Amino acid sequence: MPGPLVISIDAMGGDHGPAVTAPGVARAIKDAVGARFLLHGDETALKAAVSKLPALEGRVEIRHAERVVGAEEKPAQAMRRGKGTSMWNAIESVRSGEAAACVSAGNTGALMAIAKLQLRMSADLERPALVANWPTLRGRTAVLDVGANISCDARRLVEFAILGAAFHHAVNGSVRPTVGLLNVGSEDEKGHEEVREANRLLRETRFEDLQYHGFVEGDDIAKGTVDVVVTDAFTGNVALKTGEGLARYFRAMLRNALGSGPFARLGALLASAALRRMASELDPSSINGGPFLGLNGIVVKSHGGTDARGFATAIRLAADLAASDFVAHIDRNLRTLTAQAPRTTVEVGERTKA
Amino acid sequence: MPGPLVISIDAMGGDHGPAVTAPGVARAIKDAVGARFLLHGDETALKAAVSKLPALEGRVEIRHAERVVGAEEKPAQAMRRGKGTSMWNAIESVRSGEAAACVSAGNTGALMAIAKLQLRMSADLERPALVANWPTLRGRTAVLDVGANISCDARRLVEFAILGAAFHHAVNGSVRPTVGLLNVGSEDEKGHEEVREANRLLRETRFEDLQYHGFVEGDDIAKGTVDVVVTDAFTGNVALKTGEGLARYFRAMLRNALGSGPFARLGALLASAALRRMASELDPSSINGGPFLGLNGIVVKSHGGTDARGFATAIRLAADLAASDFVAHIDRNLRTLTAQAPRTTVEVGERTKA
Repeated sequence: MPGPLVISIDAMGGDHGPAVTAPGVARAIKDAVGARFLLHGDETALKAAVSKLPALEGRVEIRHAERVVGAEEKPAQAMRRGKGTSMWNAIESVRSGEAAACVSAGNTGALMAIAKLQLRMSADLERPALVANWPTLRGRTAVLDVGANISCDARRLVEFAILGAAFHHAVNGSVRPTVGLLNVGSEDEKGHEEVREANRLLRETRFEDLQYHGFVEGDDIAKGTVDVVVTDAFTGNVALKTGEGLARYFRAMLRNALGSGPFARLGALLASAALRRMASELDPSSINGGPFLGLNGIVVKSHGGTDARGFATAIRLAADLAASDFVAHIDRNLRTLTAQAPRTTVEVGERTKA
Repeated sequence: MPGPLVISIDAMGGDHGPAVTAPGVARAIKDAVGARFLLHGDETALKAAVSKLPALEGRVEIRHAERVVGAEEKPAQAMRRGKGTSMWNAIESVRSGEAAACVSAGNTGALMAIAKLQLRMSADLERPALVANWPTLRGRTAVLDVGANISCDARRLVEFAILGAAFHHAVNGSVRPTVGLLNVGSEDEKGHEEVREANRLLRETRFEDLQYHGFVEGDDIAKGTVDVVVTDAFTGNVALKTGEGLARYFRAMLRNALGSGPFARLGALLASAALRRMASELDPSSINGGPFLGLNGIVVKSHGGTDARGFATAIRLAADLAASDFVAHIDRNLRTLTAQAPRTTVEVGERTKA
């Protein structure tokens, strides 16, 4: 397969399988993502889906996979029995070097477990972090972890700073992104022990590729005070979901307000183009796609219920990451951290811990 | 002083002192809060402020206080040197039984420390919890703690459930409010140990005055899935501030959208009454006023930077709490908890711990 960039797709993943993934690839191609694609999944279903989309001609290769990872399958199960599934094979294409990145809308836990098993973590990271790329008043802010790292010690939080900065650099082009640590106040003595210690570590370590800003608070996310906001996955998940809930609340309020009488309805009609543009910026499918950070390779998780537009956004993200020095950027800064702030205890076997 | 309800006011507290507190009291009186008020603070300043407000005639009594707690004063300092300040005296009116509730827009840490010192905590609670009364698609949801309980064990989280249910009952009139525990998923095994153990305790204890719903997620707050959402103060503060930041972001987006061309501007003009109503519902001053929960007495903290409207909202809240069986409601349920799930170790001296 000629061409510089190859992206591997778990074409069966997500709530809708090929009905969304194939049109998603087509949309990404129309949006000028200059890649070729390996579509992993049921050959018959994929041939049918591809034949309807002229944009895919000459740009995709179908790789038959007998099986699919179920939406309810546990990570441990998926690791044991995942071989031969579209998800497994899509990641294997990255491991073998055939593809530069993989995109899947499948079961998140299974995807993380299989990706970790096949690609391994960078340095001594424990498990991948997930990032949310929030729209803010000043561009985008990367918030992490919103994945599986529920409880984090100080070191883990510093690692997130490194991962988030590499992500922001790769996707938003920022040079030396600014990083803030999420807390309940800006003074050094605020918060629990883990954030206070992480604050100290981030102040004292000299990173080439990121600037540490200090503590930030919840309202700094939407303000865009920093490029990267670091927190544990419990807090990150709550913040993200609270935001999603509020966005829905706000849309409902606006709909009520603009439907509340003849003047309001006429006003809404006149302003409809502007309001539609705004709604599209707040649409989750425009911010769909979270990469697993910290793997030796690029795997992007798309929301399971996304549409073709959202899947195309995840593909674009994978292409941006593949075109950057993302993995090397992370490695370099993890080495800086280890050199300047060595671990006090070397935990044997940590690299293989679940 | 005749009349059933007396509310004591720290008239010097907040960014604006009597310039906001006196008009705030006047506004509460106009809004049919049927109380009399003790205004604690500088007599000269208060006389001047009161004389300009005919609504206050016959409804207020000025109590001179020489001193004021500074905005930067530390809680320990305020406890030692607070005697004779307007804040101290306002709380003392509650302790002595002269007033049924106290409202202050002063220094939060100092107010909490002085209130705890004078009024003491109910049962073996450690320190007061602060509640945020969020507007949702289905009314109001009480979220707590958003105060000082940064790290919480399971027992503390169950206590918040009790405090929040009593608050929701008193302020929103709900009978057996529903309570959810904030987590990153709804399955029993999700989250860290403290929330899993609190989930178990809440399932197993039979409370007369609340219904336990189970785990909820961040988006359930704005949805109004439950009446009370329980979490530690770290997560609660982040969720609250993230929400405030997003509300500001939405308003800015809407302003941009509606100013983006002649049709949009004309539309905004036609819809302006509806949009103003909506903005007022999202206005922080309409949800101003957080009581300290768990004290043997009612103390409501108003936002320091609030206006007269916001201060009046805090007064109305104090009046609602004073008219309810709030403190008894809490005591009753704390006794149920202790009877059905006794502490494994009795921590001597915990009641006086900072």
